[in-house]
Amino acid sequence: MSVINQKIPVGILGATGTVGQRFIQLLESHPRMVVAGVGASERSVGKMYKECVNWKLDTPIPEAAGTLIIQPCDPTFFVKSNCRIIFSGLDAAVAGDIELAFLKAELAVFSNAKNHRMNPAVPIIVPLVNSSHFDMIPHQRSLFSLNRGFLITNANCSTTGLVVALKPLQDAFGPLSRVVVTTMQAISGAGYPGVPSLDILGNVVPFISGEEEKMEEEASKILGTVSKTDFSFVTAQDMRLSASCNRVAVIDGHTESVFVEFKQRPAPTIEQIETVLSQYVSEPQRLGVYSAPEKAVVVTHLPDRPQPRLDARIGKGNAVVIGRIRPCNIFDVKFTLLSHNTILGAAGSSIMNAEIAIARGMISD
Amino acid sequence: MSVINQKIPVGILGATGTVGQRFIQLLESHPRMVVAGVGASERSVGKMYKECVNWKLDTPIPEAAGTLIIQPCDPTFFVKSNCRIIFSGLDAAVAGDIELAFLKAELAVFSNAKNHRMNPAVPIIVPLVNSSHFDMIPHQRSLFSLNRGFLITNANCSTTGLVVALKPLQDAFGPLSRVVVTTMQAISGAGYPGVPSLDILGNVVPFISGEEEKMEEEASKILGTVSKTDFSFVTAQDMRLSASCNRVAVIDGHTESVFVEFKQRPAPTIEQIETVLSQYVSEPQRLGVYSAPEKAVVVTHLPDRPQPRLDARIGKGNAVVIGRIRPCNIFDVKFTLLSHNTILGAAGSSIMNAEIAIARGMISD
Amino acid sequence: MSVINQKIPVGILGATGTVGQRFIQLLESHPRMVVAGVGASERSVGKMYKECVNWKLDTPIPEAAGTLIIQPCDPTFFVKSNCRIIFSGLDAAVAGDIELAFLKAELAVFSNAKNHRMNPAVPIIVPLVNSSHFDMIPHQRSLFSLNRGFLITNANCSTTGLVVALKPLQDAFGPLSRVVVTTMQAISGAGYPGVPSLDILGNVVPFISGEEEKMEEEASKILGTVSKTDFSFVTAQDMRLSASCNRVAVIDGHTESVFVEFKQRPAPTIEQIETVLSQYVSEPQRLGVYSAPEKAVVVTHLPDRPQPRLDARIGKGNAVVIGRIRPCNIFDVKFTLLSHNTILGAAGSSIMNAEIAIARGMISD
Amino acid sequence: MSVINQKIPVGILGATGTVGQRFIQLLESHPRMVVAGVGASERSVGKMYKECVNWKLDTPIPEAAGTLIIQPCDPTFFVKSNCRIIFSGLDAAVAGDIELAFLKAELAVFSNAKNHRMNPAVPIIVPLVNSSHFDMIPHQRSLFSLNRGFLITNANCSTTGLVVALKPLQDAFGPLSRVVVTTMQAISGAGYPGVPSLDILGNVVPFISGEEEKMEEEASKILGTVSKTDFSFVTAQDMRLSASCNRVAVIDGHTESVFVEFKQRPAPTIEQIETVLSQYVSEPQRLGVYSAPEKAVVVTHLPDRPQPRLDARIGKGNAVVIGRIRPCNIFDVKFTLLSHNTILGAAGSSIMNAEIAIARGMISD
Repeated sequence: MSVINQKIPVGILGATGTVGQRFIQLLESHPRMVVAGVGASERSVGKMYKECVNWKLDTPIPEAAGTLIIQPCDPTFFVKSNCRIIFSGLDAAVAGDIELAFLKAELAVFSNAKNHRMNPAVPIIVPLVNSSHFDMIPHQRSLFSLNRGFLITNANCSTTGLVVALKPLQDAFGPLSRVVVTTMQAISGAGYPGVPSLDILGNVVPFISGEEEKMEEEASKILGTVSKTDFSFVTAQDMRLSASCNRVAVIDGHTESVFVEFKQRPAPTIEQIETVLSQYVSEPQRLGVYSAPEKAVVVTHLPDRPQPRLDARIGKGNAVVIGRIRPCNIFDVKFTLLSHNTILGAAGSSIMNAEIAIARGMISD
Repeated sequence: MSVINQKIPVGILGATGTVGQRFIQLLESHPRMVVAGVGASERSVGKMYKECVNWKLDTPIPEAAGTLIIQPCDPTFFVKSNCRIIFSGLDAAVAGDIELAFLKAELAVFSNAKNHRMNPAVPIIVPLVNSSHFDMIPHQRSLFSLNRGFLITNANCSTTGLVVALKPLQDAFGPLSRVVVTTMQAISGAGYPGVPSLDILGNVVPFISGEEEKMEEEASKILGTVSKTDFSFVTAQDMRLSASCNRVAVIDGHTESVFVEFKQRPAPTIEQIETVLSQYVSEPQRLGVYSAPEKAVVVTHLPDRPQPRLDARIGKGNAVVIGRIRPCNIFDVKFTLLSHNTILGAAGSSIMNAEIAIARGMISD
Repeated sequence: MSVINQKIPVGILGATGTVGQRFIQLLESHPRMVVAGVGASERSVGKMYKECVNWKLDTPIPEAAGTLIIQPCDPTFFVKSNCRIIFSGLDAAVAGDIELAFLKAELAVFSNAKNHRMNPAVPIIVPLVNSSHFDMIPHQRSLFSLNRGFLITNANCSTTGLVVALKPLQDAFGPLSRVVVTTMQAISGAGYPGVPSLDILGNVVPFISGEEEKMEEEASKILGTVSKTDFSFVTAQDMRLSASCNRVAVIDGHTESVFVEFKQRPAPTIEQIETVLSQYVSEPQRLGVYSAPEKAVVVTHLPDRPQPRLDARIGKGNAVVIGRIRPCNIFDVKFTLLSHNTILGAAGSSIMNAEIAIARGMISD
Repeated sequence: MSVINQKIPVGILGATGTVGQRFIQLLESHPRMVVAGVGASERSVGKMYKECVNWKLDTPIPEAAGTLIIQPCDPTFFVKSNCRIIFSGLDAAVAGDIELAFLKAELAVFSNAKNHRMNPAVPIIVPLVNSSHFDMIPHQRSLFSLNRGFLITNANCSTTGLVVALKPLQDAFGPLSRVVVTTMQAISGAGYPGVPSLDILGNVVPFISGEEEKMEEEASKILGTVSKTDFSFVTAQDMRLSASCNRVAVIDGHTESVFVEFKQRPAPTIEQIETVLSQYVSEPQRLGVYSAPEKAVVVTHLPDRPQPRLDARIGKGNAVVIGRIRPCNIFDVKFTLLSHNTILGAAGSSIMNAEIAIARGMISD
């Protein structure tokens, strides 16, 4: 009881879904947060979590969360339960209004849905990349007339891995001019039931609705800055990005073939690029928060890595693995990156964002 | 008997391998050629084909070829059997010398191995692209002091699909300046036993040894021309190509995400590109040879196609399917292409090359 | 025009589904039947077939059927179009009443749904096994007060392969006493979207709802006889059958491990069993109907076959492949069988049943 | 240093193989054992482990073991290094003689190879089942003229899961009379490179060489007893077992459909069977050894479980999960079981056997 009291109570919306299950799993023994409420759709409300979830992870349902009763996705119960933080794994079809309701109830909302990402008052924060965008929050609160609540979104899962690779390069070598990326994305990214097996077994599906557009627009917002004067987002406008997104028969882990051109001439060498990537230290690492990976970027020199089946869990799924860093005939460098799409690419980033917020004192009692 | 006499006897080297099996399958009821000899490694010599092949195709072993006795991979038997054409599915480890021996025995050799592809006297012919490179043969014969024999190579399977897409664009709109391509290649491309299942099930392997280099150097040879003066190859030197090659859990069919920039300004529109691709007519179609696909390039407008499991057999595996033709933020156009790696990408191209040679009267009695 | 007039017009219900697509594919160039109508659910009615079907087969949509307009699943249009035969690929959720309506409209209905299978007036006919059960039709017509219409069901796909293996054994060696069977079933058996990829990629799901019960009850009806006195079904009551059904990551083809005990003592030898299986001739073969496989049962002596990816298309998907016939420590024999679940196990059997009915003169003008 | 000194130094033979890698992984932070030597084939000898292993597990190579130098597979180094225990993951092609040499060098050898399993002086011990067979060791030592050394084998991976399910039933309800089992086995059971991807992707291979024979003969030795008079093995001779073994596209975890008949009449009820299975306590649990699972048998009531992808890691891979316990039309009960083939089915059992030996004081200083 006393331990729970010391932890911050959090709520999970869309708790029975693919991302919701990851939240439940990752928060099981979190030292600073405890799951105090789980929300899901009407047909689950009132049932015990473990009895209505179609659990698809390869670890057991956590005992404590398993016995929680599913609540409706409105703030009443969560406010009453003293939740300070709301993690939303809601589907975009319903996330928009629900997340706003929780925001207006003065909760700190960490969303995985796309609905509010491009809102000029809402940051997309990839914790290994742009925690500086928390600076936008006072402005957001004033716009929404809030005292304590705020809304932070995650990036799309395929954007997340990419910007973690690009950020150290941009920091070290200045603006990127052109980035071509082809993704090979895991099926867990589509949720459950998600991708029909007849579509993906022994196959590649060269299309994920809206995905390329998301990568192209989110990346320049994330890699941009927050204006100190008017708190608007200043996008990384020198950078042009072109994406081609594919679904492959992989459970977890998005693999991306990336081709990068720098603005700076002469361009950095391959060795310089490797050094910068492997020495990159992100804010969660500096703050020492619980979910921070030991290294934000793990550079591998094995010739045929990273591979999603073997490497997606590196850094507990919160690191990006980069390999095959080599010269490009057209741009300056090409490489392959891998990130865990439901950990770093979803629940893990939300949790690290919350940990940063806690560390910064943004979650009041 | 008389029918067989009218057909041209052909030999298949490496007949028990993955590509060799495709030759046997595709030639089963060929109207102009009949398999008269099959060569394989020492341990199979003297055995009946059907008793030593580890047949991995989903159609039965053809009756006639099944009862042939495996021969050593030297020309003696094949010359005695009156073979005019040799299809080589030999592994690169042994193909070099063996193919030369057959060439010197005055046979028309169609090779799938990489060994002689970059030889300045040997063309790489993708039959849907550059049958004009047969013009090199007289020069080749004079260099090798041959009367009837000649040696034609196929392109690497991942190169093949790409150049079929690029050739119509180059013909219609002039030189290409930059091509970025990321491949997602089928396991059958690695032969048998080839890729271990522990490596590829639920996984992506972002590396295929030598593959990117092959794509980069072969494409500009194939898309280049043969000099009328000294019969040297003039490469498509304006074109820079950068490839990233990946293995995915697909049986047959290489999928490629392609980004293309033209030299011409203004660049052609998406509609012009679609029109040129879908109206492209290749030499095998003009000649009406047996294996020619109805359309060399099949343009699909379905939003999530081409897909290897569903589309690789289009045009009996001898066509390239192109979809998702759309504008690119960086270059002029991006699209996804699919080609069958062991048909058009290997045995099918060799057979069409032989059909072209027959049609051109290059296979003498 | 004249050719079409000579063919019997047929309708397909549930035409956009997995089984419906197989009907469309298999009937494309049928010599005696032509698809004259396609029925599907309300949301597709009025649209052109090729524009609303989510086609998942690896051959193109047949031209003629592709331009048909989807009709509602009631008999009006089909009767008006002079259809004599209705193939139903409807889902069990709706098949019951719709199929009855077509039956009452005096059409010959061939159903793949489970709804009417255990009806004492409706035969389950596996064409390679018990076409003798057509003898029930006059009785059925009198019960339903019909002149021309009748209703024949297919067996469940996993039952179908099994009874094709058991029937020749029962014919030759007398009643079977015990049959234990474990299935490894393809995902296409669950339709589309069907099995979520997260459930089956790299996995086995040891449960298919209702499947074991279907196998256990259907098999004894199919392997039984129709009483000449009261036209009731006399089940193969000596036979006890116990099934365990599993879903595996296979596109098409159900594999079954079967253990069989005969009543007769001494039991037949393995050689006798192989001989009887490989020499079995079914009614469709005797009648020489279009879809009959050359052999109903293909016995393979390769040590590691049958395999679904390589062997499911044998006999155009209308044969059963049996291998590994060997002694059993407990019963008399064990073996592995394979059948194509959407061809022989669904659409193919319906079509052969219709062909038998045509051959028997049961489809009047 | 002192901690290492307190731990028992152990050697791993075949350390770079699939089972060898599991040993390295599972022993990484073992409280009582430390890897002091790694042996592999000639071509690796002298290299650092992490530089010659083709590591295929999804956790990183342990630091300490990673820097060990590969030794030849003879006892010299291992004896010199004071190893007391040898874990052998050697291939059967070489395991026979090598393991004997280590035995003669007075080491405690725990083998995963089949070579000595049916030796009348060598027990096959599945630690969750028949640790009582350690009673054979004094007799074995006297036969081999040994003071300290002994040789214990593991069961074949598919046998292991089965006997863990059968043992509690036999203990509670007396002899089993008949057991029919069909396996669906993971590819990791075949080692690396092992199963070619062309054989298993989207496929089932209904044959694993020697596997059915192993299951049939090992099970009755394991479920039998050691005679107190002459120390011979008394097999569970009332039990007849018939197996059908299949390979499926699963990474880790063998699934088995099991049909069981008891000798006792009336047979136990399904409820009694469930109770006995879920309450089973094995020797490693009683001893409280480090690798013992909390429950040896985990009974699941979810309708579609166990599933290898989701459940193979239960009990850290050292438990057997049993589900779908239900009546059988022919025998008394049928169910589905799952065990992790490279943990409980290989390295995990060897380690638990060693832990039992340590607990019993059989590993002298």
